[in-house]
Amino acid sequence: MSSWIYGFGNGSADGDGTMKTLLGGKGAGLAQMTALGLPVPPGFTVTTAACSYYFENEQNWPAGLDEQMNTALGVLEERVGRKLGDAADPLLVSVRSGAAVSMPGMMDTVLNLGLNDTTVQALATQSNNPRFAWDSYRRFVQMFGDVVLGIHYTRFARAQKAFCGEQDPSDLSVEQLQELTARFKAVVEDSGSEFPQEPREQLRTAINAVFKSYNSHRARYYRKTQGIPDDAGTAVNIQAMVFGNLGSGSGTGVAFTRNPKDGAPGLFGEWLPNAQGEDVVAGIRTPLPLNGNSAREGEQLVDAMPEAYAKLEEVQLLLEKHYRDMQDIEFTIEHGRLFLLQTRTGKRTALAGVQIAVDMVGEGLITEIEAITRVDPVNLELVLRPIISPDAKKTVMATGLDASPGAACGRVVFEPQECQELYERDEPSILVRLETSPEDIQGMTVAEGILTARGGQTSHAAVVARGMGKPCVVGCTEIQVDYSRELFYAGDFVVRKGDWITIDGGTGQVMEGKVEMLAPQSDVSALETLLGWADKHARLKVRANADTGPDAARARELGAIGIGLCRTEHMFFQADALRAMRQMILADDLHSRQRALNVVLPIQRAMFADLFKVMDGLPVTIRLLDPPLHEFLPVAEEDVAGVAKDLGVRIESLHARLQQLHESNPMLGHRGVRVGVTSPEVYRMQVRAIFEAACQVGREGVDVLPEVMIPLVGLPAEIAMMREIVMEVAEQVLNENQARLEYQVGTMIEIPRAVLLADQVAEHADFFSFGTNDLTQLTYGFSRDDMGKFFPDYQRRGLLKDSPLAIFDTEGVGQLVKMGTEKGREAHPGLKVGVCGEHGGEPGGVAFFHACGLNYVSCSPYRVPVARLAAAHAALGLI
Amino acid sequence: MSSWIYGFGNGSADGDGTMKTLLGGKGAGLAQMTALGLPVPPGFTVTTAACSYYFENEQNWPAGLDEQMNTALGVLEERVGRKLGDAADPLLVSVRSGAAVSMPGMMDTVLNLGLNDTTVQALATQSNNPRFAWDSYRRFVQMFGDVVLGIHYTRFARAQKAFCGEQDPSDLSVEQLQELTARFKAVVEDSGSEFPQEPREQLRTAINAVFKSYNSHRARYYRKTQGIPDDAGTAVNIQAMVFGNLGSGSGTGVAFTRNPKDGAPGLFGEWLPNAQGEDVVAGIRTPLPLNGNSAREGEQLVDAMPEAYAKLEEVQLLLEKHYRDMQDIEFTIEHGRLFLLQTRTGKRTALAGVQIAVDMVGEGLITEIEAITRVDPVNLELVLRPIISPDAKKTVMATGLDASPGAACGRVVFEPQECQELYERDEPSILVRLETSPEDIQGMTVAEGILTARGGQTSHAAVVARGMGKPCVVGCTEIQVDYSRELFYAGDFVVRKGDWITIDGGTGQVMEGKVEMLAPQSDVSALETLLGWADKHARLKVRANADTGPDAARARELGAIGIGLCRTEHMFFQADALRAMRQMILADDLHSRQRALNVVLPIQRAMFADLFKVMDGLPVTIRLLDPPLHEFLPVAEEDVAGVAKDLGVRIESLHARLQQLHESNPMLGHRGVRVGVTSPEVYRMQVRAIFEAACQVGREGVDVLPEVMIPLVGLPAEIAMMREIVMEVAEQVLNENQARLEYQVGTMIEIPRAVLLADQVAEHADFFSFGTNDLTQLTYGFSRDDMGKFFPDYQRRGLLKDSPLAIFDTEGVGQLVKMGTEKGREAHPGLKVGVCGEHGGEPGGVAFFHACGLNYVSCSPYRVPVARLAAAHAALGLI
Repeated sequence: MSSWIYGFGNGSADGDGTMKTLLGGKGAGLAQMTALGLPVPPGFTVTTAACSYYFENEQNWPAGLDEQMNTALGVLEERVGRKLGDAADPLLVSVRSGAAVSMPGMMDTVLNLGLNDTTVQALATQSNNPRFAWDSYRRFVQMFGDVVLGIHYTRFARAQKAFCGEQDPSDLSVEQLQELTARFKAVVEDSGSEFPQEPREQLRTAINAVFKSYNSHRARYYRKTQGIPDDAGTAVNIQAMVFGNLGSGSGTGVAFTRNPKDGAPGLFGEWLPNAQGEDVVAGIRTPLPLNGNSAREGEQLVDAMPEAYAKLEEVQLLLEKHYRDMQDIEFTIEHGRLFLLQTRTGKRTALAGVQIAVDMVGEGLITEIEAITRVDPVNLELVLRPIISPDAKKTVMATGLDASPGAACGRVVFEPQECQELYERDEPSILVRLETSPEDIQGMTVAEGILTARGGQTSHAAVVARGMGKPCVVGCTEIQVDYSRELFYAGDFVVRKGDWITIDGGTGQVMEGKVEMLAPQSDVSALETLLGWADKHARLKVRANADTGPDAARARELGAIGIGLCRTEHMFFQADALRAMRQMILADDLHSRQRALNVVLPIQRAMFADLFKVMDGLPVTIRLLDPPLHEFLPVAEEDVAGVAKDLGVRIESLHARLQQLHESNPMLGHRGVRVGVTSPEVYRMQVRAIFEAACQVGREGVDVLPEVMIPLVGLPAEIAMMREIVMEVAEQVLNENQARLEYQVGTMIEIPRAVLLADQVAEHADFFSFGTNDLTQLTYGFSRDDMGKFFPDYQRRGLLKDSPLAIFDTEGVGQLVKMGTEKGREAHPGLKVGVCGEHGGEPGGVAFFHACGLNYVSCSPYRVPVARLAAAHAALGLI
Repeated sequence: MSSWIYGFGNGSADGDGTMKTLLGGKGAGLAQMTALGLPVPPGFTVTTAACSYYFENEQNWPAGLDEQMNTALGVLEERVGRKLGDAADPLLVSVRSGAAVSMPGMMDTVLNLGLNDTTVQALATQSNNPRFAWDSYRRFVQMFGDVVLGIHYTRFARAQKAFCGEQDPSDLSVEQLQELTARFKAVVEDSGSEFPQEPREQLRTAINAVFKSYNSHRARYYRKTQGIPDDAGTAVNIQAMVFGNLGSGSGTGVAFTRNPKDGAPGLFGEWLPNAQGEDVVAGIRTPLPLNGNSAREGEQLVDAMPEAYAKLEEVQLLLEKHYRDMQDIEFTIEHGRLFLLQTRTGKRTALAGVQIAVDMVGEGLITEIEAITRVDPVNLELVLRPIISPDAKKTVMATGLDASPGAACGRVVFEPQECQELYERDEPSILVRLETSPEDIQGMTVAEGILTARGGQTSHAAVVARGMGKPCVVGCTEIQVDYSRELFYAGDFVVRKGDWITIDGGTGQVMEGKVEMLAPQSDVSALETLLGWADKHARLKVRANADTGPDAARARELGAIGIGLCRTEHMFFQADALRAMRQMILADDLHSRQRALNVVLPIQRAMFADLFKVMDGLPVTIRLLDPPLHEFLPVAEEDVAGVAKDLGVRIESLHARLQQLHESNPMLGHRGVRVGVTSPEVYRMQVRAIFEAACQVGREGVDVLPEVMIPLVGLPAEIAMMREIVMEVAEQVLNENQARLEYQVGTMIEIPRAVLLADQVAEHADFFSFGTNDLTQLTYGFSRDDMGKFFPDYQRRGLLKDSPLAIFDTEGVGQLVKMGTEKGREAHPGLKVGVCGEHGGEPGGVAFFHACGLNYVSCSPYRVPVARLAAAHAALGLI
């Protein structure tokens, strides 16, 4: 005959932790904890098979279940030493649902089952606390009526209000509680149901209610969306009640086996004396710490109940030894005796996650590979950033896109130069813009965080902020920015210049005022240890995208083994360089253009020299100019006159040139290698700057490994022409300096056609670097700046789960990465292939690039740890 | 012993037309013509092998050549009845180079070789024309010195100027000519050379000079660029001179065996009595017609020299019978005797080409397949358009892109409504704009032609003009348009509103004033015959892109077997519809949007009904709305107020909505199916209009085959969602009308991702239609509107030969078409696949699509003949 029931208690259990399918998650957990010798209140589990049978057989119990339940109940009564319905010493139980996978719509817990008009008296006597007994009974009648019998809770609420108004029933006298209980019973009867006095009847009814709740509309819908079969069924857990509210020797609490905020070892948690679990959750009373410093002496559990605390420490060791991870425990102390009601893997901050994983390796609990496995790469970025405190009170005014994680708090400003002013007064600022442009870089550098109303995951603001490791929320369409009045609206909020706000770049939330934050850990030794282990397993190398010496230094600190993308654009925005660039753009003849470029040359050379010094011995990939030339000219009409005056040109000439350079679709316009083709002198200048810098620092003993990268190549002829130019200028400079230097010339692969003709392109390239931002945009026919208009609808309607600019599209764009790599290496065996788009630091992308056999990924410095860990996960087959 | 020399004359020849490698093109032709019995002056050819030997053996002649030349010369002297250097009756010859492939840098012709101080006297006596003889000698000395001895021609020019100033030497007296000849000989001697008096010495020297010219720098460079091997060598043709300038019984001319302008049968050409070939070319005297009507009686060759004319007619028949194609003949008549100097395949207009090919089938000269082969599909578009007369005088002011072929002449206007005004006064207009937009359609419809300063081959102006079959030049960056002053600059030209200009959409030329044009043929029966033959062989079906009833009617006339692309955009620009669309865009709630769409519905329904009636029995593919919504709102600031007033909204609201809809890269923005996803009510309205129209005309007995096409699909989920919507609305309408109807739902394939996931997309599509415009733009990362900024440089530097928007990129985009077709059919066997981009009417594209196994192409109506013929060429393996 089948076993429909599995008991547990007194250190032994019929089941174990592996039997989730039959016992449900909760039942298996209770069996496991019991078997571990943990102090779990005894009980038994009705299997999911019984539930399935129930539905397959017109809601009848299987033969034998009744009998087995009687037996199990007998064992339970014996273990507890009380009997269900006993008039002197009654057993009370809780009844809980518990499917293999928890799901919404399932029946809530019923507590205190076994109480009736007789046993309530016994409870009063035995606890010496009639109010406790009657309050428990009052609650039970209400809970049973609502949860088991399905009487709408408002009927009880109305009855209660009629009886005692707004007063908390817990404050009623015993007599009043008795009267309220009677009224609740009347509600049940008025609803055409009956409140069963017989505890076994209560139990049968409750078990059936759990079964039925498995077939509720919500549960069925949930299973459908999650692809869970309907015939799996739910288990039902019947467990002896323990009470934390039996006076000062009792209590209840929650404990983590290590600190979930920073991973520090030792118990961490809160408790309430003389309270039940609900009280802790309800938040009416302020919980007390388990240990450590406290405002009021003796309130910590370790002082108030040293024995129970010692027992909890034993439990902690036992649990961590068994589960080999930090646990989150719910416990109750009944008359000084510790009971464990639940244990589960504890949630933790990213920082704590790393610390705990590394510590556990040290403690011999887990292996290095397990430690690597334990940490989700995505979370690593947060280790290095301030975050909103998990307990913080906050008012969210609007939500945008989570462009660069971490929290920032500061005064709102709308003009980049105001960031500088506040910075000089030592005041933090949040730069709020419709969108940002290269001219805003200076202000962005000194702002605490950036918030834009427009733009997507790879908008200028997002890319720059990630590069700087600065919190950023973009595409926040819920705010309306009014520059002229220096304010923004967010729903009913009006936020003016100078007002404080807090943004969370990890969630996209924009919050009112100053919100409490946790500072990032300054000691990153655990992170370094973990990443060191990761590097041992990873095959994919991790480089960083960095444009300046300081960025590169940070990248190197974080473990980048090279620069995979140095964008040279910003080098043109330095004031002198910008002026010269503008002169060049406005010049009519090559001679004047060349003269202007000669002004830019030393500025770029100095910047490259900085970079090379920092990256001594590591490769540095420098992308030649990518943006269209018009980005260097003023946009706003009010700036045109000033710029014209500064350059000494007629305002009409500047306007004419602006009109000439205007593009309908700048993303598809005259940029990248196309500028190199039409104005090769610009690329020549840049190559000269690179190699002059290399020669200069080379003389100082720096080991320089430059890789010149051509952006936006779509034709094999483009890279062929550029390779010739680069090599010609490089050899010229090397000859002038009587220097020798190994260098490479390669290309971005970001135009679909370059993928399709990758074999031909590879003949002229030492390396490929996939620019997955542009490649994704062109593959989808999306523009990062415009997709905000329709993307929310796409998400809402389930057409797209994530933005393909944030999460790499392995299915579509992935095919191109694979094809480009294969074709490229077919024509050029051993071709070095990397990725320098945002996806180089996105774990799913990293896994895909690993599988494609790429050599490296390159991402913003703060994502380097993410990529290193993800590369290890990929190599270990975890993602 | 090798034959180094091949003679020809008196109806027999040692070689023939197949021996181009050995005898060069000219030598083989002379041999062939002689063998055909044509009156060719006799001569002989020194083989290319002799030339090769010469260079391989330190510029020595091969053994035997000298002897063979003596023999050949003897034969020639015998055939002509004159001897080289004979003091009484001297033979004069011409010497010409003639490689297998003609190339620049080769030696020019030397005429009158054989003249010296003695023979000139004989020529004077014999011709009874001392001036002719001395002028010939004078010319020969100069030509020999310049061409053979390499003395710079300016030295002869200086000597001539010193002697007779600016006077034409032909007008000098005999004595003066003698003196000038002596001075020319002195120039030769002063240059350190010697003018050889001995004719055989003259001949040897000239032959060597031809050999040497084969190794000139220009010729070597040309061979290198063309991949012609350097050791092929050139032949040398020595041919007896004939003279057309020996008095009124002599003459020279050019004849086509059929009319090259319209293909009409019969000789067509010009001649000059008492003249040499050079005189016809020089254009000093006006040539006379061969036949037909003439201003002055008796001037036609047929009247002036009826016997020679009759001989020419014999030649005509003989040549066409042999060459089986229309020939272009150079002839000379010496004392009434006709000589043929050259014959080659005659150039002809597109119209003539078709007529000749069809006529020749009728005459049994060629087969139907040969006729198909003879006509280049590209030219067919011109058959239906006016063209610039080949003889026209023209002043080209600027050159843009050849967007839509054909010539147009009219008064310049800058505003579309002015086209209408001129049209109503019956005056032709050319609309000149920076670029056009959908609002300009009305004006474009009544303009003769369109000229834009911006935009590329698929800009709005280009696409619309091609659809209308209207001449159009776009991207003419050489003109500066100043709307405010109502003029444009083109180099030094200033063209004001009302001035006449002529544009040639086939060459991109913009010409001053009215230029002479040839009207298109109104009788297209030959074209129809040819295309009927083509259709028998073509596998690829040809549809047309047409948006209106009249367009569709034209397409059907031109042989389209369906509409492959009906763009529904223009249906929204009808005044009532536009107003309603604007209301819809500005509406806040679905209800108001729906109300506005209800105004558009009947307008669209009526337009669809028109289309269906015209296409009775043929499929009509209707693309749902493609452009972004902001295209329906005013662009110019001055229009905003008016539109706001018209719609009864506050100007601020309109501005706000405009700001909201603004896109950085509209091509990659919120358009196509993305509008369908965010505003499904728009697509629902369109589908309802389609099916209501189908039911309505169906009741009138029209056979409707609608195909609903979703644009810009990149995700399988998009087409899945749209297919559901289309089918839901379609079934609804059919039920309401109690009608049954076969219809299809398919998708454009124009986003690279749709190609990569074509298997998944195909599961929801009845057909694929490649939109090769957008697909090309996304594959290249180009925008049609912006590529004009760098494309000229790309062409100049040889990076790109043609714009991939004009000529299909088989190498890159072609891979995607192939992949998409294969993947699509893998998942959906038998999937119907077509192309509805511009390339559907581009022969190279058609050939590729044929090879890919596509079912159909669809192009603008005027390109349907091109596509039909190209499809036949492809099936016959000709392209």
